[in-house]
Amino acid sequence: MTIYIDINADIGEGYGSYLQANESEMYPFITSANIACGFHAGDFMTIPSSIALAKKHGVAIGAHPGYPDRYGFGRKPMEFTAEEIYSMTLYQLGAIGQNADAQEVPLSHIKAHGALYHHVNSSSEAANAFMKAIQATKRPLFIYTIGGTVLEKVAREKGVRVVKEGFADRRYDANANIVPRSELNATLDDPVEMVQQIDFLVREKGIETICFHSDHPGALEKIHMVRNLLAEKGYAFRNIT
Amino acid sequence: MTIYIDINADIGEGYGSYLQANESEMYPFITSANIACGFHAGDFMTIPSSIALAKKHGVAIGAHPGYPDRYGFGRKPMEFTAEEIYSMTLYQLGAIGQNADAQEVPLSHIKAHGALYHHVNSSSEAANAFMKAIQATKRPLFIYTIGGTVLEKVAREKGVRVVKEGFADRRYDANANIVPRSELNATLDDPVEMVQQIDFLVREKGIETICFHSDHPGALEKIHMVRNLLAEKGYAFRNIT
Amino acid sequence: MTIYIDINADIGEGYGSYLQANESEMYPFITSANIACGFHAGDFMTIPSSIALAKKHGVAIGAHPGYPDRYGFGRKPMEFTAEEIYSMTLYQLGAIGQNADAQEVPLSHIKAHGALYHHVNSSSEAANAFMKAIQATKRPLFIYTIGGTVLEKVAREKGVRVVKEGFADRRYDANANIVPRSELNATLDDPVEMVQQIDFLVREKGIETICFHSDHPGALEKIHMVRNLLAEKGYAFRNIT
Amino acid sequence: MTIYIDINADIGEGYGSYLQANESEMYPFITSANIACGFHAGDFMTIPSSIALAKKHGVAIGAHPGYPDRYGFGRKPMEFTAEEIYSMTLYQLGAIGQNADAQEVPLSHIKAHGALYHHVNSSSEAANAFMKAIQATKRPLFIYTIGGTVLEKVAREKGVRVVKEGFADRRYDANANIVPRSELNATLDDPVEMVQQIDFLVREKGIETICFHSDHPGALEKIHMVRNLLAEKGYAFRNIT
Repeated sequence: MTIYIDINADIGEGYGSYLQANESEMYPFITSANIACGFHAGDFMTIPSSIALAKKHGVAIGAHPGYPDRYGFGRKPMEFTAEEIYSMTLYQLGAIGQNADAQEVPLSHIKAHGALYHHVNSSSEAANAFMKAIQATKRPLFIYTIGGTVLEKVAREKGVRVVKEGFADRRYDANANIVPRSELNATLDDPVEMVQQIDFLVREKGIETICFHSDHPGALEKIHMVRNLLAEKGYAFRNIT
Repeated sequence: MTIYIDINADIGEGYGSYLQANESEMYPFITSANIACGFHAGDFMTIPSSIALAKKHGVAIGAHPGYPDRYGFGRKPMEFTAEEIYSMTLYQLGAIGQNADAQEVPLSHIKAHGALYHHVNSSSEAANAFMKAIQATKRPLFIYTIGGTVLEKVAREKGVRVVKEGFADRRYDANANIVPRSELNATLDDPVEMVQQIDFLVREKGIETICFHSDHPGALEKIHMVRNLLAEKGYAFRNIT
Repeated sequence: MTIYIDINADIGEGYGSYLQANESEMYPFITSANIACGFHAGDFMTIPSSIALAKKHGVAIGAHPGYPDRYGFGRKPMEFTAEEIYSMTLYQLGAIGQNADAQEVPLSHIKAHGALYHHVNSSSEAANAFMKAIQATKRPLFIYTIGGTVLEKVAREKGVRVVKEGFADRRYDANANIVPRSELNATLDDPVEMVQQIDFLVREKGIETICFHSDHPGALEKIHMVRNLLAEKGYAFRNIT
Repeated sequence: MTIYIDINADIGEGYGSYLQANESEMYPFITSANIACGFHAGDFMTIPSSIALAKKHGVAIGAHPGYPDRYGFGRKPMEFTAEEIYSMTLYQLGAIGQNADAQEVPLSHIKAHGALYHHVNSSSEAANAFMKAIQATKRPLFIYTIGGTVLEKVAREKGVRVVKEGFADRRYDANANIVPRSELNATLDDPVEMVQQIDFLVREKGIETICFHSDHPGALEKIHMVRNLLAEKGYAFRNIT
């Protein structure tokens, strides 16, 4: 029996004349694109061009908001109040949502980026502010998050659908917890191992979407191989519905 | 008989810890606020707080998009393609429109800022790109512009309502053209002269809204006096409907 | 007998068209200016104009580097590596030092701003990186810091002169430790109390410079009164030599 | 007889996590690096790392200042006053000069970037402001510029050495004027043609340095081939002395 899985990647992460490596070649391999909204990365030009490419490739689009920190690419921990989390999320959702509407593509999901991702996953106050912004848009957005987070709990309380995400290139322990980067072997590089782990995460842990990073060396070859190996195991690829 | 006139001002033009002088005290004197959208000025926090204050004072809100140039406050001429004009306008409209929706306030109008204002008023290509962004939002926005512009012509062709704007502190010649800043006496400072000129512009030239600048010295006193003098002449103040 | 004391304030903290309130009127009241270097505040235009004003008023100038965070005005805690602290300090010192040389004014001191101030005061790694940048300039800069910090210790080890700083508007306890902002009465508002506290800090704790904030309401009146009261007590004002 | 020629490229044009393509592999092929100074591109981290790589490869370093416009990569025409040109150049020269001093590498030259390059080459006011900033540093900097410019004239008047620059990938007419981009065949792609043109520009027009762009597709292969072909013609490569 076919098992359906979503493959997502962060997209639209250039800025002005800067392009993110491999990005434009990722579309054929993914089913959902998390599009940067102009704060940590992306700008008013990358958003419409990313949406247009996603539309052309039949890839679902989501918002990928982040901290207002271009230098640090939204990865540096910073302190923001709940009000700031709410307002930065709402602003970014408005900007990308308007572009989605203009191209008549539904905005299907939201995934926080970098330090904002960690913040809303672990802080109840931040998760509530994030959720409040999502619900203010009145769009039926899914939230991508790793399982077992504060964000998951808050989303379920508010009646927002959570889509559990796994990372193709990070190692998980037997309890499906991500091995911290501080440990040896925190990352996976071998497509065969990746596929075994994805299969485990999907079957045992209810993971519905797998995230690939486009900016890693050999990213395109790897995602291609992983897809083929997953297909041999009976997987098929489509976005969350 | 009462003549109704709209009084508008640029609002929400701070950034982070920077505040625009007098801004918060302008609300009682205006009927429409042009709210900066986070490019030339304003940010994800000033937008919701400006909308909230406008709502509290019964002031109509509009989008005030500008060039992505904080250092130059959007006033430096820069070259942007039509596609860039379209996309920067759409992005900013999305961001502020989402905030307006979240606070259940209609976004009533749009007024381009600084160098973008001059660009869309004078270039047919830019005016069309600007209009395309406005119409993509499907919001029934009025466009504020001085009369006789390329923008006015393009808007009328597209069926978008134009609201003719006059500037309280700039001198107009007998044909109702603004005296260039390069000439002596380009600006008006005396409230009595301002009122005479406003009355002329309204009666003879169909001006519907008067723009005041909040950041000029004595701005609050001046707008207060001008309003009182206009009221004595039979004017009343309300936003465009 | 006359006691000499330095009065410092943060200066040049505008950006583009944004001005910091009262700033230009502070010069007659201070003896040292900590000039923002274009990261958290200030830009390539405010630096030379601030130096020119300081020179005109006989005010000594120092570098006031901060985090690359205009939105948060350099006050948000962020994580930077030691290499980043070194390089951001060196860059800012180069920019302001070049301007000081061009106007033939010595750059006399350095005072870190906001979150960078707290970081270098408390982290040995950050303090060493900061010191390394200072020493790389080969300028004989004094470092302004509150007493008892990691930075003070590191500076003394490296042979860099430390100037102990007190804050006019913050309350100190009997051990001359700053009362945290989280407590009631964390700030001082009464000039008489300020003067008593300054006198205590100078006599008992070796404070050599007092910092005033220009952006507080009534800042100019307060600094004027405090100076007069200090003068009555036998104080005179001059920069550190 | 050996003819010496300098090969320069723009370097350090990344920003935060963004890297400029091929950049790190250019060093073995060039003799001078024009290092971005943190306005149009580059930041406080790319400057020291670019200088360190240049030093390691024996490549001379120069300042490559640009407009404060990251989105447009300093290529968009903008209006700046002479005072702004002076101050933005001085700021950037200070930042990079301090880093050069810290690594004990001489800063040998300056080349304006993009729209600033065009501005100082064509406007006497801008050229004078640029020159004033250069001379304020008291560093004996060479100025790279195409021949016949206003900048060249102003530099010669002020006693600043001008180094005439040619572009490897742009076509020149019989009078050694660059064919405008608006014309067909404005660019050169064939290494053999490039070498013929370089030889013409060096012998007939006194060009001393040739600029290669690192961000073009196949840039590394092309520069490698051109160098080999030039060597066969008796050229050797070294920076300006």
